[in-house]
Amino acid sequence: MDRLAETPRSTLVRRPHRGHRDRATVDTILDEAMVCHVGFVEDGMPVVIPTTPWRIGDWLYLHGAARSRLMLHLASGALVCVTVALLDGLVLARSAMRHSVDYRSVVLFGGGEAVEAPEDKRAALLALIDKLSPGRSSRVRPPDDGELAATAVVRLAIDEGSAKIRSEPPGEIDKDRPWTPWTGTVPLALRAGPLRPVVGNEAPPPALPSWL
Amino acid sequence: MDRLAETPRSTLVRRPHRGHRDRATVDTILDEAMVCHVGFVEDGMPVVIPTTPWRIGDWLYLHGAARSRLMLHLASGALVCVTVALLDGLVLARSAMRHSVDYRSVVLFGGGEAVEAPEDKRAALLALIDKLSPGRSSRVRPPDDGELAATAVVRLAIDEGSAKIRSEPPGEIDKDRPWTPWTGTVPLALRAGPLRPVVGNEAPPPALPSWL
Repeated sequence: MDRLAETPRSTLVRRPHRGHRDRATVDTILDEAMVCHVGFVEDGMPVVIPTTPWRIGDWLYLHGAARSRLMLHLASGALVCVTVALLDGLVLARSAMRHSVDYRSVVLFGGGEAVEAPEDKRAALLALIDKLSPGRSSRVRPPDDGELAATAVVRLAIDEGSAKIRSEPPGEIDKDRPWTPWTGTVPLALRAGPLRPVVGNEAPPPALPSWL
Repeated sequence: MDRLAETPRSTLVRRPHRGHRDRATVDTILDEAMVCHVGFVEDGMPVVIPTTPWRIGDWLYLHGAARSRLMLHLASGALVCVTVALLDGLVLARSAMRHSVDYRSVVLFGGGEAVEAPEDKRAALLALIDKLSPGRSSRVRPPDDGELAATAVVRLAIDEGSAKIRSEPPGEIDKDRPWTPWTGTVPLALRAGPLRPVVGNEAPPPALPSWL
């Protein structure tokens, strides 16, 4: 599917001009995200758990301990909301109310689907390794049968929801002009610091994700 | 309160040794977070919306357009789950299943409380400006009555939930040793890039948050 479906629950009411439903935009945001927030309803209460998502084609994958409440819930097929937000900058205006942040976000809705076959689980988990460090999966010990059995892998179709992007300088109106602070954008991005190798490890440094 | 209350919904089941409930730890994470994810239940469905939180004393504040579904929901006092996750590093191990990420997270539960008095709303919103850039609130045009009326400010007591912190080198076991990739931690942090001032603005550059 080239575009995400618009449904009542995924209609953008606030600032719809910031909305995007084309898969290229959505996928770029999902592929950069090292953290997503999974929302589900447990005994009528909302629960939001952070975890690392990864994408394979038209599916967003999540994993965790097989007995965790997040994974049990996801694997049950119950409706979840998965949200990703990348912070791109602080937007500083003359007026308090026009301060903002630049961001790229995706909100997806759907029911999870358990990945059951050990070979499918193994392949999916190795794709996550390659998200952390491109090309790494062939150089690490792959999951064995016991590890696979203790780990749940769940996927969600990327087909309902939307992306939202803010990327603009701060606005100002005439009455703001007497105030003269610095105005503009402080760009923010996740950056890697000096590597911290395990003591004694002298292998060549790892490849880093392209967005770092 | 010095510690967050432990309740059935906030009991840490997975890896409880990573849990923290002392307010100093919780507050440090909340104060660094420029994004939180608010989960609520709408017509029985989970919805997770990212927004910028800020803390004043024992309360976590959120704001938005007064008519937005997030703010209407929060102001109603319905139960919400507010989650913050700060990504601190990629943890690369010899074995696929021991890869991880370092993080600091907080999960809070509770019901929102609308801040109604215009002076209270104004003071709270100016505290958010000072979170974006310390000391800035006195140099910007404060919210006027019309702006305050169009904006909802809601607060949540910081009293139920927990923090969770992972900060460890990768583990390994004997059977991993034949694999010899680079192992260790790739530290990650949000960093500021070159400032992008509005054209013509020549005021001195803004103060940045202490964690940047």
